Amino acid sequence: MANPDFALTCPVPLGRHRTLQLAHGGGGRLTRELIEGLFLPAFDTATPNDRHDSAVRPFGASRLAFTTDSYVVHPRVFPGGDIGRLAVIGTVNDLAMAGARPLYLSAGFILEEGLPIDELRRIAGSMRAAAEACGVELVTGDTKVVDRGKGDGVFVNTSGVGLVPPDIAIHPRRIRPGDAILLSGDVGRHGIAVLSVRGGLAFESPVESDCASLAPLVSSLLDAGVDVHCLRDATRGGLATALNELALDGGVAMEVEEHAIPVPEGVQGACELLGLDPLYVACEGRMVAFVPGASAGRALAALRACPGGEQAACIGTVQTGPPGMVALRTRMGSRRLLDLLSGEQLPRIC
Amino acid sequence: MANPDFALTCPVPLGRHRTLQLAHGGGGRLTRELIEGLFLPAFDTATPNDRHDSAVRPFGASRLAFTTDSYVVHPRVFPGGDIGRLAVIGTVNDLAMAGARPLYLSAGFILEEGLPIDELRRIAGSMRAAAEACGVELVTGDTKVVDRGKGDGVFVNTSGVGLVPPDIAIHPRRIRPGDAILLSGDVGRHGIAVLSVRGGLAFESPVESDCASLAPLVSSLLDAGVDVHCLRDATRGGLATALNELALDGGVAMEVEEHAIPVPEGVQGACELLGLDPLYVACEGRMVAFVPGASAGRALAALRACPGGEQAACIGTVQTGPPGMVALRTRMGSRRLLDLLSGEQLPRIC
Repeated sequence: MANPDFALTCPVPLGRHRTLQLAHGGGGRLTRELIEGLFLPAFDTATPNDRHDSAVRPFGASRLAFTTDSYVVHPRVFPGGDIGRLAVIGTVNDLAMAGARPLYLSAGFILEEGLPIDELRRIAGSMRAAAEACGVELVTGDTKVVDRGKGDGVFVNTSGVGLVPPDIAIHPRRIRPGDAILLSGDVGRHGIAVLSVRGGLAFESPVESDCASLAPLVSSLLDAGVDVHCLRDATRGGLATALNELALDGGVAMEVEEHAIPVPEGVQGACELLGLDPLYVACEGRMVAFVPGASAGRALAALRACPGGEQAACIGTVQTGPPGMVALRTRMGSRRLLDLLSGEQLPRIC
Repeated sequence: MANPDFALTCPVPLGRHRTLQLAHGGGGRLTRELIEGLFLPAFDTATPNDRHDSAVRPFGASRLAFTTDSYVVHPRVFPGGDIGRLAVIGTVNDLAMAGARPLYLSAGFILEEGLPIDELRRIAGSMRAAAEACGVELVTGDTKVVDRGKGDGVFVNTSGVGLVPPDIAIHPRRIRPGDAILLSGDVGRHGIAVLSVRGGLAFESPVESDCASLAPLVSSLLDAGVDVHCLRDATRGGLATALNELALDGGVAMEVEEHAIPVPEGVQGACELLGLDPLYVACEGRMVAFVPGASAGRALAALRACPGGEQAACIGTVQTGPPGMVALRTRMGSRRLLDLLSGEQLPRIC
């Protein structure tokens, strides 16, 4: 996801716009303003400072992780996936980012009159296959139909619940100076894969979305006994946005090394062509993990031994600098700020 | 809600339509065909025959109820509520229908570019007020923005989780011949309230939506020691649709008495004007309860003692007739079938 728990303090004014802009949904600065300036003050309930991919709450004698995401990706089918697969994977990953074992998903469909029923059948089949692969159960659902011209084919909401093991505490608040910043794989595939089929663009080297469950990678870290401080999947807004959110929410600074961040050739080429920065392009199967510096080697080995983590790399460290500051050490050796973008570079990427 | 758990057996062909019709979202026969012919076969996972307002699953040492609903009501503000209040109440009620104590809600917004931000603020405030009134926490959320003309202002998905007490078993499978059918109040208010502000209709007697939490009514039944067999809120498709679904899913017949069903004067008048049957008009704060015939008196007393249940009535009984048959004994003494409608009489009512 990218949109965290509602229960945060510190509202921010939302004065610049009177109407909603596409960029409010982009995962960048405007999304953050919308959440902090509107939703959090409105929903401000009990728990302060609880920004995370899933909310974690007591449930009976256990702890429950709970998350929701709507999927409006356009187009609905792209190299490496479709809206159905994305809707399952994205929500499973948000549960995994809290250290939870994903258990149950819901599926809510908002469908536009006139949608071919065969397409809906394919999407449902794709959700089922993804759920089976992730070992989660789709247990409840809802369907609404809106009149022609009042929707866009298919919007899918998936919410998910997972069980958080008793000894797990994975949260932005636990990020500490000295933590190593690990990245589980190369970046930018999902955004470029979607873009490649939007408006009939075609690139030389076809790029497939990285859309995949991160739960096995998280398990491998935990099984290796690593004291994972925080996890975040680099979805809407890409790696740079994930780091910025965590630097703000964890109250720390970060420095990352450009040369250590794997960018596939096809992503690099497409970004150059289109004037995009690959560090801001959405992934759907990549995460950053914050672990104690001393555990970095063990954690990397655990990630690399797991399918999907072969390219895992240590890309930087958490520092004591100004809270919220994320710096990039470039290949040239210079240092530049990686800031939050105003919107996303690419609307409706998930 | 109206859209049950996905995990059912017995798929039905979905051959008549190649594209989605508005009526597929109406809660009637076409909605049922879509669920049974498409979603259930696609999602068919573990548990057979589990149609219910919420899925109930083991979670740690407890049992969890989980439900989801999207809200696309048009217009978004109506007498007695708005889309925000509806989104909280509707999902709380689906949890209550499983006998669960509602605990946590998620909120997923799909917003159209150009939406006035002040309107969004009012909706969020309305959700907060409703959540506080229901004693539930809005703990996680997501916002997506779609381009102008690809949405309709605001769609809200809420999912909810609740804790099911150990000794509770409320399910269509438990409905038995001889059960009394109790209705918690008058019917048709929500649908007529929405309709009254759609297209500038104005009726003589203004009707307010009945949109309200049913959780206190459920608690009062359980606290009175009634062995509640099944509960269902009469939302999309109204009372008649709820009874039909339960007669099908419970494998029983039902007979209800027209004279025993309270219909407010304003609803009756509007229905006559518009050629609607009030028994098919949506409610958002009414439920039917199936209890052993011998407990009917105690159950009615418990409902009537609870705010919102003052008009509770015993409207009929479960019988041994053909499974799925719902008969209405009219005021004239004749008997007619209350069938599932093809679609809803009123699209986008919730």
